[in-house]
Amino acid sequence: VTWFFEIFLLKSKLNDYTEYNPAFEVLFNSYYNGVGKLHPRANRGFLSRPTVNEILSYREHVDEHMLQLLQQEMNDELAFCFQLGLNHEQQHQELLLTDLKYNFGHNPLKPAYVESLNSVISTAIIPKAATPIGATSIATKWCEYPGGLVETGARQDGSFVFDNETPRHKSFLGAFEIASRQVTNGEFIDFIDDGGYQRSELWLSDGWAYLNHLKDDRWCAPLYWHQDGDEHHQYTLTGQRAVDKDAPVCHVSGYEADAYARWAGCRLPTETEWEHVAASIPIKGNFVESELFHPAVQTGEGLVGMFGNVWEWTQSSYAPYPGFKPFAGQLGEYNGKFMANQLVLRGGSCATPGSHIRASYRNFFYPPDRWQFSGIRLAKDVD
Amino acid sequence: VTWFFEIFLLKSKLNDYTEYNPAFEVLFNSYYNGVGKLHPRANRGFLSRPTVNEILSYREHVDEHMLQLLQQEMNDELAFCFQLGLNHEQQHQELLLTDLKYNFGHNPLKPAYVESLNSVISTAIIPKAATPIGATSIATKWCEYPGGLVETGARQDGSFVFDNETPRHKSFLGAFEIASRQVTNGEFIDFIDDGGYQRSELWLSDGWAYLNHLKDDRWCAPLYWHQDGDEHHQYTLTGQRAVDKDAPVCHVSGYEADAYARWAGCRLPTETEWEHVAASIPIKGNFVESELFHPAVQTGEGLVGMFGNVWEWTQSSYAPYPGFKPFAGQLGEYNGKFMANQLVLRGGSCATPGSHIRASYRNFFYPPDRWQFSGIRLAKDVD
Amino acid sequence: VTWFFEIFLLKSKLNDYTEYNPAFEVLFNSYYNGVGKLHPRANRGFLSRPTVNEILSYREHVDEHMLQLLQQEMNDELAFCFQLGLNHEQQHQELLLTDLKYNFGHNPLKPAYVESLNSVISTAIIPKAATPIGATSIATKWCEYPGGLVETGARQDGSFVFDNETPRHKSFLGAFEIASRQVTNGEFIDFIDDGGYQRSELWLSDGWAYLNHLKDDRWCAPLYWHQDGDEHHQYTLTGQRAVDKDAPVCHVSGYEADAYARWAGCRLPTETEWEHVAASIPIKGNFVESELFHPAVQTGEGLVGMFGNVWEWTQSSYAPYPGFKPFAGQLGEYNGKFMANQLVLRGGSCATPGSHIRASYRNFFYPPDRWQFSGIRLAKDVD
Amino acid sequence: VTWFFEIFLLKSKLNDYTEYNPAFEVLFNSYYNGVGKLHPRANRGFLSRPTVNEILSYREHVDEHMLQLLQQEMNDELAFCFQLGLNHEQQHQELLLTDLKYNFGHNPLKPAYVESLNSVISTAIIPKAATPIGATSIATKWCEYPGGLVETGARQDGSFVFDNETPRHKSFLGAFEIASRQVTNGEFIDFIDDGGYQRSELWLSDGWAYLNHLKDDRWCAPLYWHQDGDEHHQYTLTGQRAVDKDAPVCHVSGYEADAYARWAGCRLPTETEWEHVAASIPIKGNFVESELFHPAVQTGEGLVGMFGNVWEWTQSSYAPYPGFKPFAGQLGEYNGKFMANQLVLRGGSCATPGSHIRASYRNFFYPPDRWQFSGIRLAKDVD
Repeated sequence: VTWFFEIFLLKSKLNDYTEYNPAFEVLFNSYYNGVGKLHPRANRGFLSRPTVNEILSYREHVDEHMLQLLQQEMNDELAFCFQLGLNHEQQHQELLLTDLKYNFGHNPLKPAYVESLNSVISTAIIPKAATPIGATSIATKWCEYPGGLVETGARQDGSFVFDNETPRHKSFLGAFEIASRQVTNGEFIDFIDDGGYQRSELWLSDGWAYLNHLKDDRWCAPLYWHQDGDEHHQYTLTGQRAVDKDAPVCHVSGYEADAYARWAGCRLPTETEWEHVAASIPIKGNFVESELFHPAVQTGEGLVGMFGNVWEWTQSSYAPYPGFKPFAGQLGEYNGKFMANQLVLRGGSCATPGSHIRASYRNFFYPPDRWQFSGIRLAKDVD
Repeated sequence: VTWFFEIFLLKSKLNDYTEYNPAFEVLFNSYYNGVGKLHPRANRGFLSRPTVNEILSYREHVDEHMLQLLQQEMNDELAFCFQLGLNHEQQHQELLLTDLKYNFGHNPLKPAYVESLNSVISTAIIPKAATPIGATSIATKWCEYPGGLVETGARQDGSFVFDNETPRHKSFLGAFEIASRQVTNGEFIDFIDDGGYQRSELWLSDGWAYLNHLKDDRWCAPLYWHQDGDEHHQYTLTGQRAVDKDAPVCHVSGYEADAYARWAGCRLPTETEWEHVAASIPIKGNFVESELFHPAVQTGEGLVGMFGNVWEWTQSSYAPYPGFKPFAGQLGEYNGKFMANQLVLRGGSCATPGSHIRASYRNFFYPPDRWQFSGIRLAKDVD
Repeated sequence: VTWFFEIFLLKSKLNDYTEYNPAFEVLFNSYYNGVGKLHPRANRGFLSRPTVNEILSYREHVDEHMLQLLQQEMNDELAFCFQLGLNHEQQHQELLLTDLKYNFGHNPLKPAYVESLNSVISTAIIPKAATPIGATSIATKWCEYPGGLVETGARQDGSFVFDNETPRHKSFLGAFEIASRQVTNGEFIDFIDDGGYQRSELWLSDGWAYLNHLKDDRWCAPLYWHQDGDEHHQYTLTGQRAVDKDAPVCHVSGYEADAYARWAGCRLPTETEWEHVAASIPIKGNFVESELFHPAVQTGEGLVGMFGNVWEWTQSSYAPYPGFKPFAGQLGEYNGKFMANQLVLRGGSCATPGSHIRASYRNFFYPPDRWQFSGIRLAKDVD
Repeated sequence: VTWFFEIFLLKSKLNDYTEYNPAFEVLFNSYYNGVGKLHPRANRGFLSRPTVNEILSYREHVDEHMLQLLQQEMNDELAFCFQLGLNHEQQHQELLLTDLKYNFGHNPLKPAYVESLNSVISTAIIPKAATPIGATSIATKWCEYPGGLVETGARQDGSFVFDNETPRHKSFLGAFEIASRQVTNGEFIDFIDDGGYQRSELWLSDGWAYLNHLKDDRWCAPLYWHQDGDEHHQYTLTGQRAVDKDAPVCHVSGYEADAYARWAGCRLPTETEWEHVAASIPIKGNFVESELFHPAVQTGEGLVGMFGNVWEWTQSSYAPYPGFKPFAGQLGEYNGKFMANQLVLRGGSCATPGSHIRASYRNFFYPPDRWQFSGIRLAKDVD
């Protein structure tokens, strides 16, 4: 993120800016071929230098100059770059949490992130109970939509959106129903207990092949789960705990989401259906600001949890909207070139900053990915 | 194919049928988990038994009993299975040619398929010149379509279609233009000469990564091409020959098709656009019956070559149509479970039986696949 | 082998010789970088051309010209090349059998080689019972040797030997004992039943790592064995049969041989010990001429089975003898360059031509290799 | 190392000892299957916890209790364990340097270890110039040895030796010559300039295959070298510098050492030859105590640099001496189980503690390994 501000703002837009360390331009370039060479991402884990202290001083250097740049005359292009940078930082705030969870969750010591955080900063963070302990999830209701010609995609009204959310465009939807809440751990355990991970007929061919090539690590439950006797337990950012059957299932791949839906006699929603439904719902939910760092039991009336808690897998491949134009220049590599082999997820999660999300927001991951807070909402056709 | 007839027709529908060899049920099962165990496909190449003679006698056994079955009372379900089996065989007739081409084309001896054929059968096959030698390709014109609400997918009027072509459904299309013919070798050489394989900005991220992980075998031209001095040559089923700049380019992957389109300032058509256009065009073209075994130079008026010559990559992910229902029973594995990570191709090729194709026909391959007769037709938005 | 005769004899030594097909020089070059380019060995399995008929006619062409060459004036160099070629052919006669066994033994149809042979040639081959059915193996006795300064390596008396057997040289041996016969299947089953494949302390570190990386195919018995209820069965060149506890164990890797020896409180012999012992024993045994194609139960007096039955793993790395000089010219690549990471095996097997073997003969394979007829003879120190 | 002291000394020999953290027993177990489960080594790089501070406090805990244990009554077994632990720690002192060099040397920032050290500890370490800058290497002389029956291996006179150095035993050596010094960078550049890395005839088959499978990273010089214009540069623990042609070549694999020797018309010494020669030479040289952290130019009379500077590859496979007995109990896994597929290196390096080395000391690495300070001394036969 610091690199992003330096390369795309300071270097080109702040007069007389001197790079903190020219070698960092290559070292921290993730995927912008247009910017120049890049240090292979697969080798990043081997870097023990620069040290944390040097990174912090790099950030300080960039922050200072960003403040200078803010005092320069603002114009549309500069304002756009600022907004893009801030939105980019928000994406990495979420990734910091999911990457930490991945690293800590695979460490046999299972260190809790929140304790670890408390030992670094002075004030203790005590995860807030977003729902009372022992809360009961509402039952699923089906919300019916008549379909027809709908419009989705971001209205370009001047507020910031990513290029991949545009242009706004028409689609035709058949009548469909969508579940009033996300699938719970309890429901997913029923799938497991019914042989869900052993029945090839429930799986996409690529998903079944993926499952089986894992051999010793073959999935038999969501990521971070392990069995202790008869009980399912899971690693969370606040440490190990028993799986709460009432909370939404989380850390499932697109393949598992699809298999679960088939088992339940349903399907995943398309992204157009999802957005059409979400467009009229206020953007409230369990976001990172709740400091729960975990999905909460769903309560309330109507369509619940469309925003926050867990990202919802759709059945839609990540593809350009009709008439899609990428951002201009080097920033054109931000989104467009990833439009292959990935699925769209919608709605944000308990690790997403609340101000980052909107109904038209498109997240995308590969079907086998499980390390995001990703879950399932069901849909079905109306015959 | 012989296995298909035995398992899905004879075994379940012919009274007192005895399998030719019960071990073949496992040995030749490609991917039907519902039928039972299968011999791993990756290990098939190691099988030196059964011998060719035994396979021929297996086929004879099955053919004989298929004739018996034809004399039984016909009903809808049986008729469907016959039709599915015959259509399945047609798919493998195409695959036989493309697999032979792949095997022969990677053999340093570069044996010509047609000569090889002539040495086996008594009558010589002389590939017919579908277009006069030295023919000149027509120039590309752009055919404009106004868009709007359209219907695609097979009409279920009783003729055989695959489950993945159904149900017929509505979509909304923006206005678009489609090229009157397929991209030629000459045009593709311009892309190569302009650094097309070296410019990351033209490629999808996954495509660029795929290209570079190939290392020594990094693509620098379509499959089967090699350079001889300044000239491009290519292996064909009738042997090595110079690349004809007027013929359609062939054996490109979805990634190359996409990169070419971006370089040309265009895009690939969606499958809905393609089908909408093709629906009003007669199904004629350079199919396998021409015995040319190679794409022919495009001549004529209007939209040329929508059927035959080369399969046309679309930008559409292979996905279920709204309301899709797979075939019932074990045959449900035929199409539906492959709806992930693949792209749709349309229109058939010079290796496809002509009677196999229709406007609603959906073929599908992974974006890096190149061994089919696959090419490019461009499209663009109308602003 | 045909290639070997063409390249190393006909091409350089027969006047006016024309190659059968110049492309074969590259196609069939296994590893002679000095000869020129080579078709990658890993891709050989994909070659469906030249056909078997063409190979036979290639062989005929070469045979004819070899006869012509034999009528030319003979000299030492030419005679050496003839002898080397014939010895090379003998090595491939053995490999033909072990490769066929590997291919047929991994085919789920488990075709028997001998039947397959009988269907091709007119006279039936009926494997001779080298030992009566139901024979009982002799018990192991320990033969003690006092050690001291010994000489091993081939005496260069004019008869053909490979370069790796020379020069004859002195070594110092401590006193040792060697088992009078090879380890039997019954003894190896005791190792299995005692948890031999599960006890890391019995294995070399590399062997244990190899075992565990195999995952689903983790070894739990010699190659070609499978369990049927409580009984061990094995695939042989004459088909499936129950494991005969009295016959020598066969198709074990160097790692298994080493682990077995450690389990038995013994060790494998060094190649110097083996050769010192073998030098005074007549070269008789169960070779390929017995047409048994399988190790036979050991009977008789004294040191039994040092030649034939199964190759015996030694603990000696394949290394140059002091003063070793490779064959001159391109043939220098025959042996010397393989002197790394392999172990020496001694004595020949039931697939080796009897005239090919001598006490100084060194075979060599990688420690994990199991597809040769390889077994175990134990040794131990005299305290 | 801290783990080693805790597991093999404190846990079994100090009364009432409580482990610092029971989870560390699994976490830091490198390869002792006999001790119990182990965290996979390949996953160690992902551990971000325990923190450095926690590791230091773990060490403090163990150090304190080791001092307590020292005050207990000493006996032979306890004394042996202390000595083994200390020798084990010395091995890891060397590995710390070579691992740091590997990590820093592959970091594009190329941080210098010594500067990094100075920023942590208060006193500056200034690498001592063990030889004057611009020193000239002595020329190679050949030292002849008559061979005959020799004794090598450690005399068991009560001083500490590893099990793999015993027992002392006889071998027969032919007459040989050994070079008076190690091969220099200048000589190795001649090998490079003569096409050494491109000429297959100079390489062992496995070495050549290894070289070529590296593709983009194919070796063309020793590890840590890179070319700047016409000049060779190298990364050292004190930063980047030009390659000094007079200093010994370093960071070559066993395959490169072997290829160089073949190119030079020589061979590598056997470990018996090396030890026989070294036995009469005082153990002095450029060890880690010189704080040079790099091989020094060789000067002086007679056989120079047999100890220190760079480990010398021998042609000998790492194998048990006749009559070898591993350490008793769990410590038996220390050395013996690694006796496969590795080569012996002798003499210590500029990263080895001087008190750790003796003439009988056997180090061992796989032929492709390059990250140790490993170099070349030539030998040849006397005809």
